[in-house]
Amino acid sequence: MAVIIDGKAVSKKLLEQIKNEAELYEKKPCLAVIIVGNDAASKIYVNNKRKTALELGFKSIVTELPEDVTETALIKEIEKLNNDTTVNAILVQLPLPKHINSAKILETIKPEKDADCFHPSNVGKIAVNGKVFVYPCTPKGILSLLDEYKISVAGKNVVVVGRSNIVGRPLAMMLLNKDATVTICHSKTKNLSEITKQADILISAAGNPKFIKKDMVKDRAIIIDVGITRDSNGKLSGDIDFENVKENSSYITPVPGGVGPMTICSLMQNTLDLFKLQNK
Amino acid sequence: MAVIIDGKAVSKKLLEQIKNEAELYEKKPCLAVIIVGNDAASKIYVNNKRKTALELGFKSIVTELPEDVTETALIKEIEKLNNDTTVNAILVQLPLPKHINSAKILETIKPEKDADCFHPSNVGKIAVNGKVFVYPCTPKGILSLLDEYKISVAGKNVVVVGRSNIVGRPLAMMLLNKDATVTICHSKTKNLSEITKQADILISAAGNPKFIKKDMVKDRAIIIDVGITRDSNGKLSGDIDFENVKENSSYITPVPGGVGPMTICSLMQNTLDLFKLQNK
Repeated sequence: MAVIIDGKAVSKKLLEQIKNEAELYEKKPCLAVIIVGNDAASKIYVNNKRKTALELGFKSIVTELPEDVTETALIKEIEKLNNDTTVNAILVQLPLPKHINSAKILETIKPEKDADCFHPSNVGKIAVNGKVFVYPCTPKGILSLLDEYKISVAGKNVVVVGRSNIVGRPLAMMLLNKDATVTICHSKTKNLSEITKQADILISAAGNPKFIKKDMVKDRAIIIDVGITRDSNGKLSGDIDFENVKENSSYITPVPGGVGPMTICSLMQNTLDLFKLQNK
Repeated sequence: MAVIIDGKAVSKKLLEQIKNEAELYEKKPCLAVIIVGNDAASKIYVNNKRKTALELGFKSIVTELPEDVTETALIKEIEKLNNDTTVNAILVQLPLPKHINSAKILETIKPEKDADCFHPSNVGKIAVNGKVFVYPCTPKGILSLLDEYKISVAGKNVVVVGRSNIVGRPLAMMLLNKDATVTICHSKTKNLSEITKQADILISAAGNPKFIKKDMVKDRAIIIDVGITRDSNGKLSGDIDFENVKENSSYITPVPGGVGPMTICSLMQNTLDLFKLQNK
């Protein structure tokens, strides 16, 4: 039976550490979030970020813009935050409405204030194993979890399922930078289970409920579930068939309470780190 | 017995096409190369780039700087080329002397003139499958070779051995963008041959002469050899044990005459493409 990785407890502990460290400074770290439109899930996410920032004693700025805001007006808002020396970290909540070019928006955020690490020059630094300001939140959270459980990735066969710009792609590069042998699978992969069965560490970020079954996983593998989908009964489910897979794995993350709580924790760490870089 | 992929012939054909296309324009594409110091191999590479550019009717600028040039002086030279509207493509020959921060130099080149695609914001765009100006030369050359032989990578298991910033890393991302299932191996990979044996397409860019043996390769696999090392007798050798591996592969590149001639071909294509973007 696997050790169940407790993301909630790790997140709580790390947030406490961040709070204690932030208290050492006279000035307070400031996180600015821009949200466009009325997407209910986005509103919840932004409110959680706001609340957590305030709990840590950070300053929080939330700018809410209407669904039909123009790209030019949104860019102006970002530039205002770029130029405001009291703002340390900027995040534009995704997804953006279709009439706005998200790639262009992410490029507008000053790389030194890019809380999510989505600016291409920041992504590129991860890709060449260069010096970065901060790492993207969810991949960073996954590596923090592994660290907490003293699981090293070096020399391990790590299989990442999913190639999003938010999780799969940057995570693969960060694992490679830590000397893992990395395979990236996705919707066009043939014989997925043959590949997942080779994984010492299997990380799924596909958003496909319970599709990773027991027979797709090697005995004693480490299983990290980034998927989170709500079924018709409102119940949250990960990519992994948890109840069955946990029997033969060595470590496994539950959904909810595994990777989920780590993302916001990384965001707060990034805000503090950017604040420190700007106040050196 | 494998089809031997003829990089020399493909390169010749593509260079001819580039020349014909460039002749359609009144203005001429201009490639500027900066070389620092007296490294013999670098001098040969730069001279080949110069000669090929001139053969295609391009304008060539080669700036030679002494080994002890300061970082500041080198940056000034790059900025001069950045601001010169008659220069379309800029390349700083690597490696640079140790007292110069290469990462900083590559970031100084204007992304729109970055002939090698080494600027982090350009690398980042590959990493997120975004819109790029041009692709890095050797990975682009490999994909051109595969295209010429009508070999598709989509859905195939592609194993890349080597994680350099010049070949392995950007190539892996470009393959992923073309729907390959990609595994990146390197010096810290355990059980390398177990992984290479799964490859439908095996691409080695390790610089380790003849270390990929017949028993490390699947029957009928496609083998691409990016390694190039000169042995004590002055003979060039690739990463692949060519004579033995070719027996059971479906396609294989020789060394020399495989991937090698493609890199300069990509550089010329990039120069023309950047010229066109700047003269739209």
